[in-house]
Amino acid sequence: MKTLDLNCDMGEGFGVYAMGDDEALLEFVNSSNIACGFHAGDPGTMARTVRAAAARGVAIGAHPGLADLQGFGRRAMAITPSEAYDLVVYQVGALQGVAAAAGARVRHVKTHGALDNMAVVDEKLSEAICRAVRDVDASLLFYAMSGSITARVARGLGLRVVSVVYADRSYQDDGTLTPRRQEGAMITDLRQSVAQVRHMLERGFVRARSGREVPIEAQALSLHGDQPGALAFASGLTQALRDGGVTLAAASPAALA
Amino acid sequence: MKTLDLNCDMGEGFGVYAMGDDEALLEFVNSSNIACGFHAGDPGTMARTVRAAAARGVAIGAHPGLADLQGFGRRAMAITPSEAYDLVVYQVGALQGVAAAAGARVRHVKTHGALDNMAVVDEKLSEAICRAVRDVDASLLFYAMSGSITARVARGLGLRVVSVVYADRSYQDDGTLTPRRQEGAMITDLRQSVAQVRHMLERGFVRARSGREVPIEAQALSLHGDQPGALAFASGLTQALRDGGVTLAAASPAALA
Amino acid sequence: MKTLDLNCDMGEGFGVYAMGDDEALLEFVNSSNIACGFHAGDPGTMARTVRAAAARGVAIGAHPGLADLQGFGRRAMAITPSEAYDLVVYQVGALQGVAAAAGARVRHVKTHGALDNMAVVDEKLSEAICRAVRDVDASLLFYAMSGSITARVARGLGLRVVSVVYADRSYQDDGTLTPRRQEGAMITDLRQSVAQVRHMLERGFVRARSGREVPIEAQALSLHGDQPGALAFASGLTQALRDGGVTLAAASPAALA
Amino acid sequence: MKTLDLNCDMGEGFGVYAMGDDEALLEFVNSSNIACGFHAGDPGTMARTVRAAAARGVAIGAHPGLADLQGFGRRAMAITPSEAYDLVVYQVGALQGVAAAAGARVRHVKTHGALDNMAVVDEKLSEAICRAVRDVDASLLFYAMSGSITARVARGLGLRVVSVVYADRSYQDDGTLTPRRQEGAMITDLRQSVAQVRHMLERGFVRARSGREVPIEAQALSLHGDQPGALAFASGLTQALRDGGVTLAAASPAALA
Repeated sequence: MKTLDLNCDMGEGFGVYAMGDDEALLEFVNSSNIACGFHAGDPGTMARTVRAAAARGVAIGAHPGLADLQGFGRRAMAITPSEAYDLVVYQVGALQGVAAAAGARVRHVKTHGALDNMAVVDEKLSEAICRAVRDVDASLLFYAMSGSITARVARGLGLRVVSVVYADRSYQDDGTLTPRRQEGAMITDLRQSVAQVRHMLERGFVRARSGREVPIEAQALSLHGDQPGALAFASGLTQALRDGGVTLAAASPAALA
Repeated sequence: MKTLDLNCDMGEGFGVYAMGDDEALLEFVNSSNIACGFHAGDPGTMARTVRAAAARGVAIGAHPGLADLQGFGRRAMAITPSEAYDLVVYQVGALQGVAAAAGARVRHVKTHGALDNMAVVDEKLSEAICRAVRDVDASLLFYAMSGSITARVARGLGLRVVSVVYADRSYQDDGTLTPRRQEGAMITDLRQSVAQVRHMLERGFVRARSGREVPIEAQALSLHGDQPGALAFASGLTQALRDGGVTLAAASPAALA
Repeated sequence: MKTLDLNCDMGEGFGVYAMGDDEALLEFVNSSNIACGFHAGDPGTMARTVRAAAARGVAIGAHPGLADLQGFGRRAMAITPSEAYDLVVYQVGALQGVAAAAGARVRHVKTHGALDNMAVVDEKLSEAICRAVRDVDASLLFYAMSGSITARVARGLGLRVVSVVYADRSYQDDGTLTPRRQEGAMITDLRQSVAQVRHMLERGFVRARSGREVPIEAQALSLHGDQPGALAFASGLTQALRDGGVTLAAASPAALA
Repeated sequence: MKTLDLNCDMGEGFGVYAMGDDEALLEFVNSSNIACGFHAGDPGTMARTVRAAAARGVAIGAHPGLADLQGFGRRAMAITPSEAYDLVVYQVGALQGVAAAAGARVRHVKTHGALDNMAVVDEKLSEAICRAVRDVDASLLFYAMSGSITARVARGLGLRVVSVVYADRSYQDDGTLTPRRQEGAMITDLRQSVAQVRHMLERGFVRARSGREVPIEAQALSLHGDQPGALAFASGLTQALRDGGVTLAAASPAALA
């Protein structure tokens, strides 16, 4: 019997600006990564999102990003490891405050956008980020891409890591995602997506674009809510997994210990 | 034997910009109000300031302000009580995260600038701010001007309040400060300042500009570090108080209980 | 034969965030007020909006607002007249640069949100704003609410003023809008809106809620694109006015001279 | 008879924060690069700086930078050429507005910090920046490092380029500056600086660290005001150059045509 944690970014509006349909997503995801005011999110949006997630029993996570609202945290920035440490600490703390005020708790952290992308190929940056999470609260779970440098560094620092996989992206032989600009990077066929995830769960492998079988650990599945058709895709995927006997639930800290 | 808590704003730089001489101030103040990234401060500045305060045994407080870096949080803004609640929660949480990562703790909250000035005359705003502090962590002390609406509201909500007084400002008959634009608002003579503070401590009264004796509770003395001569004034005041037998120490939660 | 300038705010997105349906609005408005990066808008959004307006022959205006992206410039702020002057100058200049790069020209200015609301009841603020417009480029038209302090001050400083009226708001005896929180403030019936505008155009009066006829000058009609149903309302209104023989065109500088 | 344009960054404060001693620098520089609100500067600071420069006859230039106030525009960001184009257009336009309101004119543009550093090694980025300047106002001078890709691209697009050299930095064989992290990168000896500049002016060469003579065009000399001792260094350099018969004046558009 396999279990999977459906994980999705949330609370990515800012002020009067909306982003994605959090209400709809909260109906079927198990864990949320909530923007913390740097790449998106503001104190009011964070409070509403935390309350909405708590009301539906969706696990609450911090989603720290770069201080680049204009670029939605998607543009790589040459920050130092020390700057990365400080901005993760600040943003996780801010969401902890918001959660505490709502009678809830931050359970995990997942980095956003360019911060995440930079860390995946930068051991020093990964270390700074993971130390930041550990130093704020060593009991926080850390969501990181299966097989990534960041996941390895996090485990080395004693964090409990939740391995993240993708249903709508194809993989390369080294276990990384096919870059979006390459053909075949995106998987838009629902059945193909379901097959990829089931293969991950049942065998512990993903078939790379070359056909090679690459080992992978599927604990959380990353969903997206901000693209056209994303909601229908996520909904269909969820149904198919559940029909296939997969238990959908937020990753359990006990199971990761 | 009287005790007094010398309290001062800190960490009000931003990025490459410096503000005040925190290192010098930390040598003699007892408690610090650290900017939290809205009116001033950024994650790196906050981390450095928290570590510097902790290293010298200076109590660490959050100093939430309006989201107006360009105006340093000094321009009144028509925010709703709900917005005030959210921005206090966020900023206090952020500093708690920074403090936790540094192995320290946030002990108190004091609002900044226009947020503070607006609350003093607005019961609903005061209530929103005080509920925010309580909801994040009910054990936090709350620094508020002696006799103010904010202080009364805070006590009504169960917060332990530290009464703040001023040495360099004159008072009016109703216990409020003489507005800066009026003559005689500022007290620049050191001896006069020392006399005002000693009178507060020994008698529990301040002599208003009219000559009337107004009851006041002096638990913390607000110092400023960002004006020319401020450091020398604060240093002289401190020495005179200590010579006069006043014990200078951060307000004790136990004593306020 | 009457003419009217259908005027609408535009380009109020920010980064990845969208606001309103500018493309649809540009099909029938005559003049646009383009956000300049403070309350909304960013360099890329401004460039796209200017090019889209220019391509359809819609007049380009600057829409300066308060430096409050989080509040969309809708929260009153205690800025000084000097600060108002500087922020209008900066924002108008920025849009002029964007327009010049696109081979277009900024033809007018209309202030946004709380900046506009504060100016309407503050002669000093109105003067600072109008001097800013004049000092950047004295040939710019200035859109201001018919009968307002701002309109009077602008004319006194030599600016050519375009008088703005509303189709979806009711008026009070002094010619100001019924505040939104009062019943009857909004006019949601299309026929009633058309009647109000035609009465303004044909008689030069608006019937206030009390029944009193108040003189008004209708040169531009303010439309909104960011509320549900707004586009259909604006479209219906436009059609009815055109059917009634009203010429819809951007206010002509020559006619105002 | 040689002439040289002493050029310096200015107006790099923000809100209450000060940076450098612009008043002192304005006493002897010939041209200023004024921050435009992204990496530093705000509408009020820009207005004051423009007026101060105009009052002393110092040429006014726009100094556009990355939208990274927290990092003072010094952290490389993965912006697209299109984003670079838009942010240069916006910032140059904003300063033109400020200058127009002060009865002055923007005469040149020089990019700041990481934006400048990225462009120097990126032809596409250089092209976007130079097209932005040209499209806003083709008569603007463009200050660029002597021999750089940016300078070449700018000339190719028809801009009049002012070649910038350094007195306090050593050069490498390819005409680029020795990176700061390498030994011998900085020249702190005043006589050595003066000799380097005189050699550039009289021979059209700079002696690289290897001893090799590298061709260089010295039209403007970049000075810095924000480091300790910078003002004394700049002042000493200026005096020595003037004593040596060098005419110090803002680069003349006519001479560049």
